[in-house]
Amino acid sequence: MSKQEGISVKKNENFSEWFTQIIKKTELADLRYNVKGFLVFQPWSVLSMEKMYKHMEEVLQRKGHDPYWYPTVIPESNFKKESSHVKGFTPEVFWVTQAGNKELEEKLALRPTSETAMYQMFALWIRSHRDLPLKTYQRAQVFRHETKATRPFLRSREFHWIETHCAHKTEADAFKQVKEDMETTEEVLHKIFAIPFIFFERPYWDKFPGAVRTFAADALNPDGKVIQQPSTHMIKQNFSKAFDVKYIDQNEKEKYAHLTCYGPAISRIFASVVITHGDDNGLRFPWDIAPKQVVIVSIDPKAYKKAEVLKKQIEKFASVHIDYTDRRPGEKFHYWEMKGIPIRIDIGLKDLDKKQVTIFRRDLNKKDSVPEKDAITKIKEIAKEFTKNLIKQADKVFEGRIKEAKNITEVKKIIKEGGIAKCGFCSTDKEGTNCAEKIEKQVVAEVRGTKFDEKEKPKGNCVICKEKANHIVYIAKSY
Amino acid sequence: MSKQEGISVKKNENFSEWFTQIIKKTELADLRYNVKGFLVFQPWSVLSMEKMYKHMEEVLQRKGHDPYWYPTVIPESNFKKESSHVKGFTPEVFWVTQAGNKELEEKLALRPTSETAMYQMFALWIRSHRDLPLKTYQRAQVFRHETKATRPFLRSREFHWIETHCAHKTEADAFKQVKEDMETTEEVLHKIFAIPFIFFERPYWDKFPGAVRTFAADALNPDGKVIQQPSTHMIKQNFSKAFDVKYIDQNEKEKYAHLTCYGPAISRIFASVVITHGDDNGLRFPWDIAPKQVVIVSIDPKAYKKAEVLKKQIEKFASVHIDYTDRRPGEKFHYWEMKGIPIRIDIGLKDLDKKQVTIFRRDLNKKDSVPEKDAITKIKEIAKEFTKNLIKQADKVFEGRIKEAKNITEVKKIIKEGGIAKCGFCSTDKEGTNCAEKIEKQVVAEVRGTKFDEKEKPKGNCVICKEKANHIVYIAKSY
Repeated sequence: MSKQEGISVKKNENFSEWFTQIIKKTELADLRYNVKGFLVFQPWSVLSMEKMYKHMEEVLQRKGHDPYWYPTVIPESNFKKESSHVKGFTPEVFWVTQAGNKELEEKLALRPTSETAMYQMFALWIRSHRDLPLKTYQRAQVFRHETKATRPFLRSREFHWIETHCAHKTEADAFKQVKEDMETTEEVLHKIFAIPFIFFERPYWDKFPGAVRTFAADALNPDGKVIQQPSTHMIKQNFSKAFDVKYIDQNEKEKYAHLTCYGPAISRIFASVVITHGDDNGLRFPWDIAPKQVVIVSIDPKAYKKAEVLKKQIEKFASVHIDYTDRRPGEKFHYWEMKGIPIRIDIGLKDLDKKQVTIFRRDLNKKDSVPEKDAITKIKEIAKEFTKNLIKQADKVFEGRIKEAKNITEVKKIIKEGGIAKCGFCSTDKEGTNCAEKIEKQVVAEVRGTKFDEKEKPKGNCVICKEKANHIVYIAKSY
Repeated sequence: MSKQEGISVKKNENFSEWFTQIIKKTELADLRYNVKGFLVFQPWSVLSMEKMYKHMEEVLQRKGHDPYWYPTVIPESNFKKESSHVKGFTPEVFWVTQAGNKELEEKLALRPTSETAMYQMFALWIRSHRDLPLKTYQRAQVFRHETKATRPFLRSREFHWIETHCAHKTEADAFKQVKEDMETTEEVLHKIFAIPFIFFERPYWDKFPGAVRTFAADALNPDGKVIQQPSTHMIKQNFSKAFDVKYIDQNEKEKYAHLTCYGPAISRIFASVVITHGDDNGLRFPWDIAPKQVVIVSIDPKAYKKAEVLKKQIEKFASVHIDYTDRRPGEKFHYWEMKGIPIRIDIGLKDLDKKQVTIFRRDLNKKDSVPEKDAITKIKEIAKEFTKNLIKQADKVFEGRIKEAKNITEVKKIIKEGGIAKCGFCSTDKEGTNCAEKIEKQVVAEVRGTKFDEKEKPKGNCVICKEKANHIVYIAKSY
């Protein structure tokens, strides 16, 4: 590995440049691939994202979802079966039209999402109410020819995600699933990945193409822009009708199934991991998804044996690497800090003399000398606290940036300061469209929706039309 | 789950129908997806293939390979950079030509393999001899518009694989890598997946497009046809020249790197798992890649509590499921045998009375009553022996079908009996092309190559031209 320079800008001063530098300098992805909007994910991100997949899939399987692998390609005719879907996605679809030297009889979409591939199979598999709920998911890449500016990890033309698709007997069951999806998000994104977010119900004008109700988690970047993380949707009956997804109920009556889908985009969530925890010195990873958890930097050959012994002990509960490169100590420290490894153990000559090791922890950026014999206990202790500390720090920043506004002037001020404004609003249904458009024009920010699962009583008036507020909404900038 | 009927044909009598039935009836894949050659992989195969990925990736990482995720699409111009590659793959490439409603400026290949995506990045990353070897891999799907008949898992138009790509300083280093790849194949495919195979060096006329030397593992199906499993290749210098993959050596001289690639196709290897171990009653899975390892069939509600206690104990070392369905006992037994679960535990009323459980093991298809208190010890014992037993059985079948032939009549006889014929051959280089073609015509079988890494001394004459044999080759039918 050649000499690495550090990040030359401050995260909170020039976030966009910080993000680009951190991706390049810590080798998360190479942006020089010669197709626009596509990138080469490098080992340091892939190792972490594989762990993210593992955690998310474990939770999904525990909750009764079974894994499938569907084809990457979807025939055009499937796409056309549901009109809101075709309208929503067609501008972004990559089309396969040739194979070998021949034109295909029907062109094939590179899936932008898989409803139209899956529902036809659901129709074949579901016969009776006993087959429901059908809870499925797949790990997959999806493709969207984004017309907006692409950004590595945040918005690429190919991204790596999980999509769960379920069929239920009733609308109530579907709603229960949506709530379970939100709990899963809390369990995985917040508790394991340490990312703070709010789960919103999206307003009428901002729903997934083909959904009756859309719920989506928004995380917040230092530039004051929210980034949508997993969303979960109650799908319109149009869909089950278009694809004939029906079942015979207990009274021998034929009914259409109620469908839901939930899409955690791992490569995008990874962006939020980087953004939430990274600092001016580089990356920081939550313990369970760190590409490697411990590095031992043994500066002198005299320490190598000790390092190997320590490595063997650590291996039993964490992934560990010894840095045998011939870089100078300062360079090594700097390098591993930038790479965001949770724990670095230095064994210098002084440490050898004193029968101690020096432990640097990246959650608190703190260095301590620990007697050799206590090293393992100390590492285990740090491992246990690590993610909790990141959560605490991240939550504090996040919560500090959500502020109540009584009028549009206050909304503007909050947004200008990079925050999320919370205020009264007339309606998140069709009738509110006008006021929402005005907010977009006046504040250059969006109504992200109403906070889900919290009894926020609307009080006061809509910040735009001054009518009685029926909702408390959150307003923020987005990309 | 609705009532399942068993496999209605014998594996060794009508292999092709057996294979189709087992895929459908054990729900490995649904073949009704509406794009030819593409299939929907169902949970029972995906759970197993995910474990196969895990084992293969663990070994690769341990041997120093780092994981990457490359884009699924490759620009046409990359493809055209190396002539033998473009010639070999172009007839099979799916092309993306549109995005949204617009034609793309340059069409994009759905990767049939990723050399032409990766090597341009290698050229960016490799500077000095200190950067070598560069050992990479990716888990990915690849796409080939096969012109031959497709068969689920064995030959589909989209398949799930791992491709490892490495760059080395010297040809000798490259050859060392190829040997390591063959060892990896033995370590994973034979020792964990329990699949017997022979690693051949392919003859001149049967190399990977763009390779100097190709090595490939052949497994054998009951219909007497071999199926190619992982292959590893020493890539022609043309490739490093075409993509400018070079390095500065210790003497400050610029040199082209030596490239190797190795491609274990997980979805195809899964076919060999099914084919090698399956019997007339259904699937059998090696222990470490069974979708689930233990099922408890508690026929009577009185046994439920005992089943739950047992489950908790087993969970500590194996995956376990309790079958609470209301199917009849016979149906349940039959179902789980067909599904290939390694161990089935029955707790009937008689078992309850006698404080025992009945354990059925699928490796030996044997049922034993075991005192409750010894159940865990017994299960652990079976788990330990399970894969070894499958290996023993599979190796015996495989080895029994490789036979020596002294002349073409004997070759024909062996092939007709569904075996692999081992015989003298003039040359696996260019000069032998003629004799190989004659074999194809006369025997309707192929020269698969010379056995690698075993000192098989050629003796006697070529079975076709009667010249002195320079090689011992293996002849077999293939798909």
